[in-house]
Amino acid sequence: MPEFLTLLPPDQARDELLSHLALRPPTPFDQTQGRIDSESIEVVHALGRFTAVDIFAPHPLPGFPRTTVDGYAVRARDTFGASDSLPAYLKLIGEVPMGDTPHLELDAGQCALIHTGGMLPAGADAVVMVEYTQSINPGDHNDHGEEHKKTSVDFVVSVVGNSEIEIFKSVADGENIIHIGEDVAQNQLVIPKGTKIHPAEIGGLMALGFTSISVAKKPRVGLISTGDEVIDPSQTPRPGQVRDINSYTLGALVEKSGGEAVRYGIFSDQFQVLKEAAAKALSECDLVIITAGSSASTRDMTADVIRTLGEPGVLVHGINTRPGKPTILGVCNGKAVIGLPGNPVSALVNGYLFVVPVIEKYLGALAKPKATVMAKLTVNLSSQAGREDWWPVKLVVSDQSSVISYLAEPIFGKSNLIFTLASADGLLRIHPDATGLSAGEIVEVILI
Amino acid sequence: MPEFLTLLPPDQARDELLSHLALRPPTPFDQTQGRIDSESIEVVHALGRFTAVDIFAPHPLPGFPRTTVDGYAVRARDTFGASDSLPAYLKLIGEVPMGDTPHLELDAGQCALIHTGGMLPAGADAVVMVEYTQSINPGDHNDHGEEHKKTSVDFVVSVVGNSEIEIFKSVADGENIIHIGEDVAQNQLVIPKGTKIHPAEIGGLMALGFTSISVAKKPRVGLISTGDEVIDPSQTPRPGQVRDINSYTLGALVEKSGGEAVRYGIFSDQFQVLKEAAAKALSECDLVIITAGSSASTRDMTADVIRTLGEPGVLVHGINTRPGKPTILGVCNGKAVIGLPGNPVSALVNGYLFVVPVIEKYLGALAKPKATVMAKLTVNLSSQAGREDWWPVKLVVSDQSSVISYLAEPIFGKSNLIFTLASADGLLRIHPDATGLSAGEIVEVILI
Repeated sequence: MPEFLTLLPPDQARDELLSHLALRPPTPFDQTQGRIDSESIEVVHALGRFTAVDIFAPHPLPGFPRTTVDGYAVRARDTFGASDSLPAYLKLIGEVPMGDTPHLELDAGQCALIHTGGMLPAGADAVVMVEYTQSINPGDHNDHGEEHKKTSVDFVVSVVGNSEIEIFKSVADGENIIHIGEDVAQNQLVIPKGTKIHPAEIGGLMALGFTSISVAKKPRVGLISTGDEVIDPSQTPRPGQVRDINSYTLGALVEKSGGEAVRYGIFSDQFQVLKEAAAKALSECDLVIITAGSSASTRDMTADVIRTLGEPGVLVHGINTRPGKPTILGVCNGKAVIGLPGNPVSALVNGYLFVVPVIEKYLGALAKPKATVMAKLTVNLSSQAGREDWWPVKLVVSDQSSVISYLAEPIFGKSNLIFTLASADGLLRIHPDATGLSAGEIVEVILI
Repeated sequence: MPEFLTLLPPDQARDELLSHLALRPPTPFDQTQGRIDSESIEVVHALGRFTAVDIFAPHPLPGFPRTTVDGYAVRARDTFGASDSLPAYLKLIGEVPMGDTPHLELDAGQCALIHTGGMLPAGADAVVMVEYTQSINPGDHNDHGEEHKKTSVDFVVSVVGNSEIEIFKSVADGENIIHIGEDVAQNQLVIPKGTKIHPAEIGGLMALGFTSISVAKKPRVGLISTGDEVIDPSQTPRPGQVRDINSYTLGALVEKSGGEAVRYGIFSDQFQVLKEAAAKALSECDLVIITAGSSASTRDMTADVIRTLGEPGVLVHGINTRPGKPTILGVCNGKAVIGLPGNPVSALVNGYLFVVPVIEKYLGALAKPKATVMAKLTVNLSSQAGREDWWPVKLVVSDQSSVISYLAEPIFGKSNLIFTLASADGLLRIHPDATGLSAGEIVEVILI
């Protein structure tokens, strides 16, 4: 079969691939389609993993009425009308201990010293900030300055003795208080399924007492390199040989994206050899990637191998993108098999385009904004209409006072060696409808 | 000492802190200042680490002259003047094997079949793409179509027999060839010190045969929580108690940023207890973070403890930012000690502002663009002039056809509970010079 009879646009090719995949491929032990395969792990080790279930609050937060300020717990009605010129006077009956239920109950005309986060005592319904108060304990010589500024040292001193407190500002019922469940109600959905766990999610889980959590299992991604010229990186190449790069760049991409890389090694350009290696990888993994040798014949061999592995086989052979035209997308018995070009830059760029979305689908990951930087393009870039181009670019700080503070410098490399990408900060997409981009245009660079 | 006598702008506060730190703090075993403390690790495990030395190419890439296309190796002068109407005829003398030195030498009028990535045979100086050739082997019935389109199957067939090849396009000396060292010259700097290792860097290292690499050691960051109301997340809070969040959010942030988190636990609000815990952490770590209980008195206690730990002690106490005003920045005997507010959102936002830059300095990390998304703000946000505000925002897809495809929705929360941040995609900064932002403005959201 000739190569590239029809070249699909990359977005359409990706949709075609994903439409054939369930959330996670079936396993011999679990033939259920469309569910996330999960495992329980400790929350302290969950950074970067994806939640496999919706998380609901087992209890309200806060679990008790708390003050949000340092000051005095009061009955709001006792402060009504209080001002600088006409303060209210309240009797201090004690201090709320941190971390405990206050054994106090306010009656009319009484107040209690309370610290941020402390539990509101019975009878109180608001808190006056310490800045708007003054202790009139006989031994207390603090000035009542213009802004009623109190230091924390004053504040601690003011509790000495069973003094009266001057209140210079009235508070409304509920002021400076968070009620039970005001932040999170009991049974509220707090973290939806498919959320990537960041530091804040770890904190939220801890706040609710979850020390372990159900996360999506890491999809296993089998990596096969082919090519008679390809050798292991630990070996010294003879003339004509090159070291294997793709097993490692793609393996790192898989790990970065939430998968587990399984390297099967380098296989020679023989149909039977490649077929057996691919069949083994497919039986052990959720996704198999074959990076073909560079020549056209080995690329075709990859497609032929995918056809033998299972139904429906090859879905897309040839994508209208640069780099990456020879990319092959297939599904065999519910698992994705992707053939990538041997060129390291093509392989990695197409890994971002096609491998990462498959891993995200298996993980049940919610769609999230891609990390980007807006920058000013430094040169004209031409592109063939209908083809989507991806350019590695370097971001260079130009003008820190401007909203667009970076210049985007495309990296030109005759042979697309891996160092073209290693020195890049991101990738610039030229849309298939465009015939290029002009120097000075503001472009969106996807960070890699 | 009263709190917040002078509130520094956050950028100035950060510069002050970093100016007191060497690349990495001195250790009992190594008093050298200003160098990166490194360790050797396998490249396959180096994703996300930072290179500790400049990496130079030990040999050129490619190491032999290679073709970038499938086609015929030729002597360029033999093709001069060749065209569709007047082809050149060259005698096919063999095929270049992949991964080996070709045992061929071209004489005038000869060519050799060669596959992408193959080594150029002696005598050849260019390669003609297969698309511009045709085999005129007597047994070969392939059409020479309009675009000279050849399939790879044809291509393999064409080597059968010792045939002549028609060449329909001339090539220049060096065309479709990469010369030795054209990508990377021997001893060229390929990855500078302080580079974060991404998939492409792993590939670049493998291409040059580096299977292990010197990376910066992970800075150890000691985490101390204080507050009589704070309990371990595995415990069930009684009324008045809350679970420790900050040790875990900040620990995750430290790990995400390239550091190693060391949790020392929760300590009561007593000067001597906190001082001993902080001194122990400082002796074992490169950076110590104390998240204070919420009340003003425990915040002051943190500053007093930092003053006892070493010189110069507290550098900044109070920063003109929201959240995070009570943040304390200190350096004790060459190591950073940072006091963060007890409020979980304040603690984490200020972790991004002050802890991450310290870790990056210790790692010797090169400055890189922050991951951002440009979005349209949905509401007015007011801010106090002179103060820098940070708002958690959610990014919502609005119009995928527009350059600005996201809306930025600030998340309002009375108490800054951790779930305010857990549901956020990023942080929005309001510059100290601004008095707010208007609905409809295009803003830059820093992804978290």
